[in-house]
Amino acid sequence: VRIAFQGVHGAYSEEAARALFGKGTQTLPCESFGQVFRAVTEGKAQRAIIPIENSLAGSIHENYDLLLSHRLHIVAETHVRIEHALIGHHVATLKQLREVRSHPQALAQCSTFFDLHPQIRAVPFFDTAGAAQSLATEAQPHIGAIASALAAQIFGLKVLKRNIENRLNNFTRFLALSRAPWHPQHGVQAKTSIVFKPARNRVGVLFRALGVFALRDIDLLKIESRPDPASPFTYLFYLDLAGSPGDDQVSRALEHLREMVAEFRLLGVYPRQKV
Amino acid sequence: VRIAFQGVHGAYSEEAARALFGKGTQTLPCESFGQVFRAVTEGKAQRAIIPIENSLAGSIHENYDLLLSHRLHIVAETHVRIEHALIGHHVATLKQLREVRSHPQALAQCSTFFDLHPQIRAVPFFDTAGAAQSLATEAQPHIGAIASALAAQIFGLKVLKRNIENRLNNFTRFLALSRAPWHPQHGVQAKTSIVFKPARNRVGVLFRALGVFALRDIDLLKIESRPDPASPFTYLFYLDLAGSPGDDQVSRALEHLREMVAEFRLLGVYPRQKV
Repeated sequence: VRIAFQGVHGAYSEEAARALFGKGTQTLPCESFGQVFRAVTEGKAQRAIIPIENSLAGSIHENYDLLLSHRLHIVAETHVRIEHALIGHHVATLKQLREVRSHPQALAQCSTFFDLHPQIRAVPFFDTAGAAQSLATEAQPHIGAIASALAAQIFGLKVLKRNIENRLNNFTRFLALSRAPWHPQHGVQAKTSIVFKPARNRVGVLFRALGVFALRDIDLLKIESRPDPASPFTYLFYLDLAGSPGDDQVSRALEHLREMVAEFRLLGVYPRQKV
Repeated sequence: VRIAFQGVHGAYSEEAARALFGKGTQTLPCESFGQVFRAVTEGKAQRAIIPIENSLAGSIHENYDLLLSHRLHIVAETHVRIEHALIGHHVATLKQLREVRSHPQALAQCSTFFDLHPQIRAVPFFDTAGAAQSLATEAQPHIGAIASALAAQIFGLKVLKRNIENRLNNFTRFLALSRAPWHPQHGVQAKTSIVFKPARNRVGVLFRALGVFALRDIDLLKIESRPDPASPFTYLFYLDLAGSPGDDQVSRALEHLREMVAEFRLLGVYPRQKV
């Protein structure tokens, strides 16, 4: 199978693809998330991998929007720890570095490193892996990059220092998407992602909606409200729950929920990965 | 009053500060969100302004973390529509442009513009206003920036084209913070933000927690769960509700909630701004 992802080779999304589908998996770099969705919809790739939430930056609503505007199914999830490595040429040393390139968010997440090395200038780049790629084409030992260790490996560069991020609890949750749904298997704990829009935006409605799960002892793993970008003053609710519609209780709960909401969409059923 | 914000003059945060506190308000640019919180805590500024959620990118968890680790109060909110303007020197024209600088996220949000103008190269920068600032120091009419119209005004630059963003529904919600709480006023609709951690992570607990509001007819305006960065397998819940603890019903609901959760924090009470 070929996996579409946003970014260039060595991106954290590609790391997630390898974690889910194996190290030898074939990947298809795309410029935007919209292109990632189209690649699978049009059959150029069999799976997509997209980031959906980060422990520091929150949910990526853009990808929730794309899930709603396309007909793909979530078939897997994985959590990748974002570990920023300082990368340079194989002859480079930390002492020689005068410039380090990366995405502004990655540079900000490594601000302590720059405070400790005032001789090094932080230079913004489009993405972490792209910064690593730029080193490969220019042989300048005083220029480094902040990216994943995978990016160093792909572009034949050296890891000068691992884990230069300020905070170690930086995780991103990725979802794998496919045109066909995953089928729950016996003995595999499943997770179900749904989105719904209540008929009226009052806490009473949400309370009753959650009641369909609570009164059937179904575990809720994520809940998030968001103003609906398509219509002012209304909210969308994203919910992840334990189990699959293959379970009688979950199936009945979802039937019950559909009765009381204006819009409902099953985004996918997939094996639950514990963090 | 002096308002601390993250970024350089002309940042969208400064636009939010002006929207809340008036055009002539004095502002204090800070490098990081942590410095913004410290500026108010240490009295270098009387208010802070921070982005808390964006309609496309989601909640900014980093700022929720800082709200929890500092003792500041939310005292106001405002919603700013993010309108990206194409900015250049006063002698520049769109036709002359060969390079446009901005934050990678802003460049991505204007990708359609770049598709229509293939002769213009997108160049990543630390932030939108910083890109505008860089033009002011170099008089090169073929270089432009993507930033707010406010940034153009501040740095004596020209707006070559307004609203070059792909999607017009790009809003950021900003919060104002202070050392002292806001006091609810008669006739002013209030909003209350809280965070809590249930004693056990089961949907039953969340359902009962929401019940304290639902059964008292209190409107819920936002709900979001998030894995607690401080302890694995536990969740934090962010809630915004209509009303203030000055209302009997809200006060009793919060008392009731405290009985059933492991941790609770009142983040602030402030005038509700309709989107």
